[in-house]
Amino acid sequence: MRTLKSTPARDGFRMPAEFERHAGCWMLWPERTDNWRDGAKPAQATFAAIAAAIADAEPVTVGVSAAQYQNARARLPEAVRVVEMSSNDAWVRDSGPTFLVDARGRRRGVDWTFNAWGGLEGGLYFPWDRDDEVARKILEIEGSDRYRTSFVLEGGAIHVDGEGTCLTTEECLLNPNRNGDLSKAQVEEQLRRYLGVTCVIWLDRGVHLDETGGHVDELACFTSPGHVALTWTDDRRDPQYEISHDAYRRLRRARDARGRALAVHKIHQPGPLYMTAEEAAGIDPRPGTRPRKAGDRLPASYVNFYVANGRVVAPLYDRRWDAAALRTLRRLFPGREVVGLPTREVLLGGGNIHCITQQVPLPAVRRR
Amino acid sequence: MRTLKSTPARDGFRMPAEFERHAGCWMLWPERTDNWRDGAKPAQATFAAIAAAIADAEPVTVGVSAAQYQNARARLPEAVRVVEMSSNDAWVRDSGPTFLVDARGRRRGVDWTFNAWGGLEGGLYFPWDRDDEVARKILEIEGSDRYRTSFVLEGGAIHVDGEGTCLTTEECLLNPNRNGDLSKAQVEEQLRRYLGVTCVIWLDRGVHLDETGGHVDELACFTSPGHVALTWTDDRRDPQYEISHDAYRRLRRARDARGRALAVHKIHQPGPLYMTAEEAAGIDPRPGTRPRKAGDRLPASYVNFYVANGRVVAPLYDRRWDAAALRTLRRLFPGREVVGLPTREVLLGGGNIHCITQQVPLPAVRRR
Repeated sequence: MRTLKSTPARDGFRMPAEFERHAGCWMLWPERTDNWRDGAKPAQATFAAIAAAIADAEPVTVGVSAAQYQNARARLPEAVRVVEMSSNDAWVRDSGPTFLVDARGRRRGVDWTFNAWGGLEGGLYFPWDRDDEVARKILEIEGSDRYRTSFVLEGGAIHVDGEGTCLTTEECLLNPNRNGDLSKAQVEEQLRRYLGVTCVIWLDRGVHLDETGGHVDELACFTSPGHVALTWTDDRRDPQYEISHDAYRRLRRARDARGRALAVHKIHQPGPLYMTAEEAAGIDPRPGTRPRKAGDRLPASYVNFYVANGRVVAPLYDRRWDAAALRTLRRLFPGREVVGLPTREVLLGGGNIHCITQQVPLPAVRRR
Repeated sequence: MRTLKSTPARDGFRMPAEFERHAGCWMLWPERTDNWRDGAKPAQATFAAIAAAIADAEPVTVGVSAAQYQNARARLPEAVRVVEMSSNDAWVRDSGPTFLVDARGRRRGVDWTFNAWGGLEGGLYFPWDRDDEVARKILEIEGSDRYRTSFVLEGGAIHVDGEGTCLTTEECLLNPNRNGDLSKAQVEEQLRRYLGVTCVIWLDRGVHLDETGGHVDELACFTSPGHVALTWTDDRRDPQYEISHDAYRRLRRARDARGRALAVHKIHQPGPLYMTAEEAAGIDPRPGTRPRKAGDRLPASYVNFYVANGRVVAPLYDRRWDAAALRTLRRLFPGREVVGLPTREVLLGGGNIHCITQQVPLPAVRRR
């Protein structure tokens, strides 16, 4: 692995869409008991089920601390590769690299600076030094050359269509606790350089109470070029109502990098869902880590699914809305099997399936 | 990585000779202060120099604990891949996998049971559970299927010529603290099954005071089919004299798997060398770890070199004997650059370059 001084855009690299072909998927093993209840055991069981569901479709690697290696190896299917990798928590979408490809069939990665979703001004825990090393370690194991940025970004803050368009939110990318000194135009310039995009579509805010500070990957994502899934509610009293409706209006006004209007597919949110007293009681409180309390509303969204080769792995939350979400996803991904998994334990930790996965694209040589 | 129930011999796999083509080399980072003096810093500098010398010839990966990751990453050249991997010490020749290839171009590995050179009956430290996981972890990262044995073996206890012959010692392989219940014939059967050899040449004892209990890789090795390098002394008062002369007689009587007599190339040992008071004073004593004392004779041998692609990396010890050893190695490896490195710091820890390296062969599809 070399660390390159140039930029991906200059070198002809682009971030492919998640729905393009993968070589595999990375995850990290949940462990910290100040975020995951009951010694992280319920979360570990859910992570193992998600890893197994993805491993049926593409190779999965799970990084785990030395202390948890034996436990993770025993709980994960034999087909899942388990490697030692220390981290501060298990959100590889955000701490991991953003993989890029070029037309010559090469793969590289961007190692963004990571500051735990806001550093000392609103970040979720301290320290985050191990998380900030995760991308480099993954790139070394994958043998992919690396671009390191001083620009602060988490992978969950962006989505791309693979054809030049990036979808993101102002709430997150313009938050002074990420890149306080950069203007909107300067942030766009970083996205153009490091993702190889030519068009950035800005939504306003992320999902209500999303503790990442507005990640787009709970709110909306491309499901194919020209098509966006958007979390939705028809309840005017819900604070999510205005967020989703504003996003809808912005998406309908937008044009993507190819000049297309976007079809927007609404997926009604679950719940609202809340943390129970029993769930909150299982978490070790710790100064410096964002506390979780009984009655906290959980930022649940069906949009936080993972698109694997031939398969979509999507979160299930409640009987009322699950079936409709699965129906919509099956319509949006006609070539893939849509598998739903109950993932409340991941939600309790602050995210969902998309937040705990990171795809490794399979580069293809483009024949003209 | 799958764990296979069959045996390599049955599946058509063999251990290639070290002088066959490599895909790369693994090392582990020295850390434990009860074995490596002065907080392991002198040993780390030497390991880094060895890794750099090998990395000029073939890809090198160094496994390191989470605690030492940043230090190792900073001290090793950028071209060396650094991955987290916990271990009890840095002897990857012994704790790592023995890689195998077949004629169809596939690579697999043997994960021998490891008991720290003798377990509770003469082993060198306790515990050794992390070491025993090293082979599996390396095989997972390399994506090589695995044979796991209950048979206890260290990679330094064997050498092969890649054409069906294994060289080993009775002192080590028949020591009851490895596989106490197995007869010599049964041990040979394990070597045939797991190395794909048909002929085992037994030497008697390893180098004088070698704490591994007689590893062949300090005493003798194949340098090409039909050719063996042997550590030597002409000093009749040295306990090594009888060991080397006995080995010489056995080698001269032996026939290899192809029926060839062996040419034996003597390389005069350095020294004798002894641990100084200053060196011993830098080591943290710890119950359960073999103590090192001022005045201890060190089991130094020039035979403990590593054969990389196009390059041999060999230990240097003293002015009196170094030049002759390098001359012999240059004669024995005419197609390779022979690079000598001062490695006293590795010797102080109980081994040398061969003990801290493990080659990953590059399988070739054999055309008939």
